Amino acid sequence: MCEANAYLKDGENEVMFMESVDVIEPYENGLKLIDIFGMQKFIQAKIKDMTLLNHRIILEKIDSELVQIKLNIESSVT
Amino acid sequence: MCEANAYLKDGENEVMFMESVDVIEPYENGLKLIDIFGMQKFIQAKIKDMTLLNHRIILEKIDSELVQIKLNIESSVT
Repeated sequence: MCEANAYLKDGENEVMFMESVDVIEPYENGLKLIDIFGMQKFIQAKIKDMTLLNHRIILEKIDSELVQIKLNIESSVT
Repeated sequence: MCEANAYLKDGENEVMFMESVDVIEPYENGLKLIDIFGMQKFIQAKIKDMTLLNHRIILEKIDSELVQIKLNIESSVT
């Protein structure tokens, strides 16, 4: 099985966020993760890096103020 | 082996961009992909969705004008 574990970077540490992740897709200001059992989790974060052979996904929180500014810009551009 | 194939979404089609991808990480305005042989590719794109059990990563090109505006905003915020 080729699922991966998703960890959230917290300073120097990496905290387990979700085990056995199958699907990752963008969702609103962050990501939606779905594990192999169909459970969903949402997080306001982006992918920092990912190594599939090691089954590791590292997530990093997004600054919410920056997200808001980006959203305003995107809606004014598109 | 748990590598995945990366496809670039082009309208309704999905065009193979890189086979046997191991590592994905952000790089400048896009992504750096490294395959299981250590070959690197760069693309100005973001992850549209990813299903690890199906070994599929779908990439989507980023509008370069939008990227530039975001970069300007980020550098003025941070």
